[in-house]
Amino acid sequence: RIDSARLWDSLMQMAQIGPGVAGGNNRQTVTDADAEGRALFKSWCDAAGLTMGLDKMGNMFMRREGTDPEALPVYIGSHLDTQPTGGKYDGVLGVLGGLEVIRTMNDRGLKTKHPIVVTNWTNEEGARFAPAMLASGVFAGIHSLDYAYARKDLDGKSFGEELARIGWIGDEEVGARQMHAYFELHIEQGPILEAEAKTIGVVTHCQGLWWLEFTLTGKEAHTGSTPMGMRVNAGLAMARIMEMVQEVAMAAQPDAVGGVGQVKFSPNSRNVLPGTVIFTVDIRSPDQAKLDGMRAEIEKRAAAICEDLKVGCAVDAVGHFDPVTFTPELVGRVRAAAEKLGYPHRNIISGAGHDACWTAKVAPTTMVMCPCVDGLSHNEAEEISPEWAAAGADVLLHAVLETAEV
Amino acid sequence: RIDSARLWDSLMQMAQIGPGVAGGNNRQTVTDADAEGRALFKSWCDAAGLTMGLDKMGNMFMRREGTDPEALPVYIGSHLDTQPTGGKYDGVLGVLGGLEVIRTMNDRGLKTKHPIVVTNWTNEEGARFAPAMLASGVFAGIHSLDYAYARKDLDGKSFGEELARIGWIGDEEVGARQMHAYFELHIEQGPILEAEAKTIGVVTHCQGLWWLEFTLTGKEAHTGSTPMGMRVNAGLAMARIMEMVQEVAMAAQPDAVGGVGQVKFSPNSRNVLPGTVIFTVDIRSPDQAKLDGMRAEIEKRAAAICEDLKVGCAVDAVGHFDPVTFTPELVGRVRAAAEKLGYPHRNIISGAGHDACWTAKVAPTTMVMCPCVDGLSHNEAEEISPEWAAAGADVLLHAVLETAEV
Ligand SMILES: NC(=O)NCCC(=O)O
Ligand SMILES: NC(=O)NCCC(=O)O
Repeated sequence: RIDSARLWDSLMQMAQIGPGVAGGNNRQTVTDADAEGRALFKSWCDAAGLTMGLDKMGNMFMRREGTDPEALPVYIGSHLDTQPTGGKYDGVLGVLGGLEVIRTMNDRGLKTKHPIVVTNWTNEEGARFAPAMLASGVFAGIHSLDYAYARKDLDGKSFGEELARIGWIGDEEVGARQMHAYFELHIEQGPILEAEAKTIGVVTHCQGLWWLEFTLTGKEAHTGSTPMGMRVNAGLAMARIMEMVQEVAMAAQPDAVGGVGQVKFSPNSRNVLPGTVIFTVDIRSPDQAKLDGMRAEIEKRAAAICEDLKVGCAVDAVGHFDPVTFTPELVGRVRAAAEKLGYPHRNIISGAGHDACWTAKVAPTTMVMCPCVDGLSHNEAEEISPEWAAAGADVLLHAVLETAEV
Repeated sequence: RIDSARLWDSLMQMAQIGPGVAGGNNRQTVTDADAEGRALFKSWCDAAGLTMGLDKMGNMFMRREGTDPEALPVYIGSHLDTQPTGGKYDGVLGVLGGLEVIRTMNDRGLKTKHPIVVTNWTNEEGARFAPAMLASGVFAGIHSLDYAYARKDLDGKSFGEELARIGWIGDEEVGARQMHAYFELHIEQGPILEAEAKTIGVVTHCQGLWWLEFTLTGKEAHTGSTPMGMRVNAGLAMARIMEMVQEVAMAAQPDAVGGVGQVKFSPNSRNVLPGTVIFTVDIRSPDQAKLDGMRAEIEKRAAAICEDLKVGCAVDAVGHFDPVTFTPELVGRVRAAAEKLGYPHRNIISGAGHDACWTAKVAPTTMVMCPCVDGLSHNEAEEISPEWAAAGADVLLHAVLETAEV
C-alpha cells in the first residue's frame, strides 16, 4: 500500500501554489503559478531519482528506469493545471498519485521490467485556452502543434507565447513516445461513487463532448430609445438558445448533459443592446449517435431562433472528442486490484474529459476513479478524503505493477 | 442662424479624441480620453471668452456674462463622455451646439440680460459607472457626493479616484448654482423624426427608467460530470428572466421597452456552470404606473423562476428616474423657434435619459431634438447630417435668446 500521509501532504503542498479565493486553486495553464507548480513537482521527482523529458507542448515525462532496456514504459499521468476557481484534486491527484506510486516502489526497492513514466500534461482544463486536453491531443495526433500554439485566451495571448514565456517549452517532438500502457487516476467529479459508498470507480468508458461556440450578431442600439419592433436582439437569441439546449439535454436523459459556462456580451454596457454575443454550449453523452444528434438538433433550432429574431448566427466547434472505450485488459486489472485490496468498487463512465481520452487513441489506456464530496468539481469547494485518495493510489499502484511486470 | 460648417468642424475635431474601432468613439467618462476632450473643449471656450467654473463632480460650467449682474444664468448643457462603442453626436452635439450658440452671439455682438453658461456634465452615459446622469443627479440633490465617488467600474476602480486621477475635480460645491432655465440639444437616438421627415423634435416628456441589477447565485459545477438533476444553474435562470423581461415589455406595448445590455458570468469558463451571474435589466416607459408595474412583475416572476431552479436571486435598483414633464413655457419657446425658422417639427417623448431629466427637478428645463439615421445610437455607426445638427443648434439659439432676453 502507498503512504497515505505522504500523498496527502504533497497534495496540500501543491495547493499552496496558485491559491484561489475560497480555499481552492487558480493555477491556470501556462501562468506563473503553473511554472511554480511544475518546479515543485520536478523537485520531488528529482529527489525520487526520476529523469525528465520535456516536449514542445510543455508535457513533463518523469522516468524511473526498468530492468529491460527494450521494454516500452508504462505511463501514469494527469494534469497540474486548474480552473480559474478550481479544486485541489482535479488532475493533481493523478500526477501526485503517480509520484506516490514511484515513491512507494523506491521505499520497497521494487524493480519492474518496464520503465514507469509519470506525466504532467499541459492545459488539460481548457479554461484559459480551448479546447481541453490540448497537449495530450497534440501528443495523440489530434491537433497540430501550430494549431495548439495559436490558441488564444480572452486577453488575446497565445498559448505558444505563454508557454515560452514561463520557460517550459522542451525540445522533444510531441507524440514521439510509444507507450506500453497509460493509467490515469482522477476524482470522479460526479456524485455516483459517494452516493453508493464505492471507494473505487472502474472506468470503462468516457462520454464524448462537443463545445459549440456561438457568435450571434445583433444590432448595437440604445436600450431606451430603440422601439421593441426595431431591435435585433442577440442577447434574447442567446437566452432562447440556452433554454433550448436545456430542453434538448432533458429530452436526451438519462445519459446526456448540456449547459453553458461562458458568455461574452459586447459592448457589455447596461444601456446598449449587444452587437455581438459569444457563448459556448457544452454537450456530452457516452452514446455517439445521441451526442451527434444533440449537436445537429441544437444547431438547427438555434438557426431557426436566430432567423426569427433576424440575428446572425455562426457556430464553431471549438472542442470535441468521441465517446471512448477503455482497454478491457487494463480495465480488468484495475478491477482486480480493487478486489484484491478489498475496496468497494463499481464500473463507471467518466462524465468529464481526461487526457486518457486522447492517449486511448495511441496506447492501451484506462483510468481509476475515487469519489469526491457531493460530486462537486470545478469549484473551489471540491473535496475528497485522504482515505479515498489513498485507495485510488493503492489501486493505481497494483494495476501498474501488474502491467509493468515486477 | 448659427454657422453650420463651424459646428460640424468642431464635432469632427472632438471625434478625433478617443476614437472607436469602427468610426465612432470610446471616450468613456473620467478616462484619459475624457480629460483630453475636456481640455479641447476648454480651449475653445477660452477662445470664445468664457470663464470656467468646475465643481467637485467635474461638471464644467463655461460662462458668458450678461448685462444684469443680478440675473440668474440660462444654462445649455449635455455631455462629452461616450459609450465604449459610442457615436460622435450623442451628448457632444448638445455641448458643442451650446458653444456654437455662444460663438454666434459673439459674432453678432449680441448681449443678453442673463448670463449664458454652457455645461459639460460628467458621466452621463453610466456605461463605466452606473447610474447614468450621475453628476447631474448629484447636482439636483438626487445622489450624495459620497455615493457618486463610491461608484465602481467593472475593474473595481472608483469614480472618485478616477476623477481625481484625470485632474478634473473642482472646488465648487455640487448643486450650488441656481438656474434661470436649462436647455439641452440632443440627437433623438430613435427612429421617429427621420421616419416622419421632421427636422426638430419638441421634447415634451422623457420616459422613466429602472435599472435592475440581478445577482443570481447558482452552484459552480462541472458541465460534464454534473447530472442535469443536480444542477443549480444560474445561467439558465438568467436566460428565463431575459425571456420573461421580453414578454413583460411586449405586453406593455406600445409605450414601453425592456432589455438586457450587460452580463457577467463567474468564473466564465466553458466547462463550469456559473456560480454567479450578474446582469442588468433596463426597463422604461413614459407612464409611471406602467413602469413601476413592469418592475414589480419582473421582480415577482424572476423570484419564481429562481425558486423553481433553486437559484439565489438578489435585485438591486442601480438606476432610476421617474418620467419627466418638461416646463411648458420653455417647450413652447422651442416650438415657436422651430416654427419661426421654418423647420418641420413634432412633439416627441425622449426615449433615452438625459441630464435634463435631473435639472428638471431644480430648474425650468426643456430639450431640443434632431433626427439620427435609422434611429441608431449607442453604436459607432450613429450618424446625423450637418443640416440636422444646424437646425437643432438654430432652434436652441433662438429659444435661448428668447429666454436670456436680448
Ligand atoms: N477532468 C476535467 O475536468 N477535464 C476538463 C475537460 C472537461 O471539461 O471535461
Ligand atoms: N442619452 C443617453 O443615451 N443617455 C444615457 C442614459 C440612458 O440610458 O438613457
